[in-house]
Amino acid sequence: MNIVIVGAVAAGAKAAAKIKRLLPNSSVKIFTQDSHVSYSSCGLPYYIQGNFTDYKALLVRSPEEFRAAGIDVYLNTKVEKILPNQKEIIVSSSAKGDLIPYDRLIIATGATPYIPEIKGVNKFKNIYTVRTIEDGINIRNKVLNSKKAVIVGSGYIGIELLEGLVKNGLYVDLIEHNSHIMKTLDEDMSELARNRLESANNNNFSIHLSEEITEISGDGEEASVIRTSSGLVIETDMIIFSSGVRPNVEIARDCGIEIGTTGAIKVDKLMRTSIEDIYACGDCAEKTHIVSGEKVWIPLGSTANKEGRCAAMNAAGVYCEFEGVLGSTVTRCLNTTIAMTGLTERDAAKVGYTPISVIVKKYDKVAYMPDASEMTLKVVADKITGLILGAQAIGPIGADKRVNTITSALIGHLTVEEFSNNDLTYSPPYSTTIDPLLNAMQILCTKTTRRC
Amino acid sequence: MNIVIVGAVAAGAKAAAKIKRLLPNSSVKIFTQDSHVSYSSCGLPYYIQGNFTDYKALLVRSPEEFRAAGIDVYLNTKVEKILPNQKEIIVSSSAKGDLIPYDRLIIATGATPYIPEIKGVNKFKNIYTVRTIEDGINIRNKVLNSKKAVIVGSGYIGIELLEGLVKNGLYVDLIEHNSHIMKTLDEDMSELARNRLESANNNNFSIHLSEEITEISGDGEEASVIRTSSGLVIETDMIIFSSGVRPNVEIARDCGIEIGTTGAIKVDKLMRTSIEDIYACGDCAEKTHIVSGEKVWIPLGSTANKEGRCAAMNAAGVYCEFEGVLGSTVTRCLNTTIAMTGLTERDAAKVGYTPISVIVKKYDKVAYMPDASEMTLKVVADKITGLILGAQAIGPIGADKRVNTITSALIGHLTVEEFSNNDLTYSPPYSTTIDPLLNAMQILCTKTTRRC
Repeated sequence: MNIVIVGAVAAGAKAAAKIKRLLPNSSVKIFTQDSHVSYSSCGLPYYIQGNFTDYKALLVRSPEEFRAAGIDVYLNTKVEKILPNQKEIIVSSSAKGDLIPYDRLIIATGATPYIPEIKGVNKFKNIYTVRTIEDGINIRNKVLNSKKAVIVGSGYIGIELLEGLVKNGLYVDLIEHNSHIMKTLDEDMSELARNRLESANNNNFSIHLSEEITEISGDGEEASVIRTSSGLVIETDMIIFSSGVRPNVEIARDCGIEIGTTGAIKVDKLMRTSIEDIYACGDCAEKTHIVSGEKVWIPLGSTANKEGRCAAMNAAGVYCEFEGVLGSTVTRCLNTTIAMTGLTERDAAKVGYTPISVIVKKYDKVAYMPDASEMTLKVVADKITGLILGAQAIGPIGADKRVNTITSALIGHLTVEEFSNNDLTYSPPYSTTIDPLLNAMQILCTKTTRRC
Repeated sequence: MNIVIVGAVAAGAKAAAKIKRLLPNSSVKIFTQDSHVSYSSCGLPYYIQGNFTDYKALLVRSPEEFRAAGIDVYLNTKVEKILPNQKEIIVSSSAKGDLIPYDRLIIATGATPYIPEIKGVNKFKNIYTVRTIEDGINIRNKVLNSKKAVIVGSGYIGIELLEGLVKNGLYVDLIEHNSHIMKTLDEDMSELARNRLESANNNNFSIHLSEEITEISGDGEEASVIRTSSGLVIETDMIIFSSGVRPNVEIARDCGIEIGTTGAIKVDKLMRTSIEDIYACGDCAEKTHIVSGEKVWIPLGSTANKEGRCAAMNAAGVYCEFEGVLGSTVTRCLNTTIAMTGLTERDAAKVGYTPISVIVKKYDKVAYMPDASEMTLKVVADKITGLILGAQAIGPIGADKRVNTITSALIGHLTVEEFSNNDLTYSPPYSTTIDPLLNAMQILCTKTTRRC
């Protein structure tokens, strides 16, 4: 059996390792345009920050390790075309292109950072995106020699870079075109997140909302000034775009594979595309939201790993279903944890629920413990059924784990009533006697039509 | 309506506050033998350790606050007898006893520390148990003037005191009559917990297993030497018994209220005892284990709060069910977190499941993060159905929250398969790409009869 995998960061690398274990006698080939395989791109902001000094820590498996396991790895190699009828792909290793046959093809082409069309954006060397190992190394080197930086976009990566650069002594201007940071949160929580970040602002960053860059200018190879839609003129030593990513679906679309409404490759629960024997997984593939049932595109490393494993199993003939995602995320910025799972109040209303919500602000442990720290928790539920729909948390380390307690509740379709007496572990260094989650649920109980 | 509540630490205090809010015009009286009401006895080990200096931080509500809310509080007052036929109680406020009428009676008499019968155990002033505010104050004062201590019992309180005393510079001998510490854990996890504690042993404590005190001796009012079953002779400045508690059920039993098989007061889901208009809640009441369906007695402050609230609601005529407990606990000792929920492998077998289990040892966050710390997680499931039955965790702060993610799964009756793709929040400072919980579930999937 010939297995061909296109892409090798998270989903592709996981799929390759898994399928070789399942089918030791098969031929497994990985093709990637990247010069590295199997790495933690989620770790780049922490490498840039200097939390560790050797970028090799980000490498999960090396090409040599894959080769030792009997997997062929082709670096810096572009897959030009998929030919589904003859079950071959064309790769650009030679000028005319080589034909590689496959029995099963797994597409794990990932996503590419989006850079808005701005005057001057392609002219300078000190303009970066954060995706590859090289990106990380280049940014880290520049950070060590810079005093001011502009970050464009306040999603997870933008927020993590803000911490990283500020902790390296840079002054950061964060430019966000939305009216709120972290737009996946509800606006009330986004506002609380911004306030909490601002309270850690020691005159070392500015967050500019509803602002877009209109022009980038500089001398020679280095950009040094940006101008914005409201007329700001900001000097800078470097510019990092963390303004979203787009799924890499070109080779899939070109060969007739169906693209979903989200713009990513449409797959079923077995990670099969619309063409037989071709699977897709990771950031290039569409996902199903377990709570709403809607198709979504939420590209994350944790999901890519699960999907890569599932695609490999089905490609190897071992049945495996991937139900979907909850949209669970967590990010750290300046000692603040921002985490969420499930539907926001806004999205719950959009898909037809009648959302109710509560925001509780409580200590994360009993107030008399010396390191008790304030945490804000929002829980969203359905008014009619009492079904828990989602949660958002802002607070110290640990706020994320409160959200994880909700992920299981979402998979178990628990109501606020069923959760309200959940026997969460309690001891003064770990929680309040009535955990903030239980407080939230007890309050929501009084707001549902079906009273507890 | 006359509401009478006996006991006022956690369940009684919560019930009083709740019922007065529900029925503002009722008369609510609390009787307690204690000189304090509404306090966090779970916080005593941290007061003893010196994590905070004013014991008043442990007081949730003062008698004055209760009185201001229109609740009568009788401190240092013993309830001698319940007379269910005439719906009165006899209290010992005067020599002959006063008759107090009730329409609803809530028994929240708590539990009393158990002290084994040992020669000399009643002769000395420096022998302590850990239950009341006075206990905490007395122990704290003694710790400040001691160099050596003996702790008897290695349950949660014993383990927490070990940390507290060691951090105050005392040498501690911990005496445990079982062959393992923390006997609520499975023995393999208990052994790992002990090893982890020993690795933090800087020649400042000894854990003596399968050991019992046979004699306590001393000069005058102070015990100074203990002798043990294996012949050890240990000098000490103080002895603390944390060797379990017993439910205070005497006044309930005396008036004919049914006592459960566990020795605690039998109650239904509405916290009603076997006699009409009498409720019981907190440490004196029996609980139902949600996973096994068995009656258990697991006395904990978090449960007491929930039960007090539920008893008050039903006593006030507002329907409320308390489904039961999962046996969730967490304790901290010398930077180690020990947490569990649900059934151990041992208990799962006892109640008729065919348990399978897995122990995974992984970092709590991505290994390249500077504060990554090793965590050991055991998950127990049923081989036939794949149902998750329980989890135990030993590791840094945060190990408890992994266990809380399982509590929701237990309430939702999730299988290992359903959990194995749980969309837990992921980012390098918070978790590994594949969270240890997901690793555990994926391995368990391969061990169930009904394969994933």
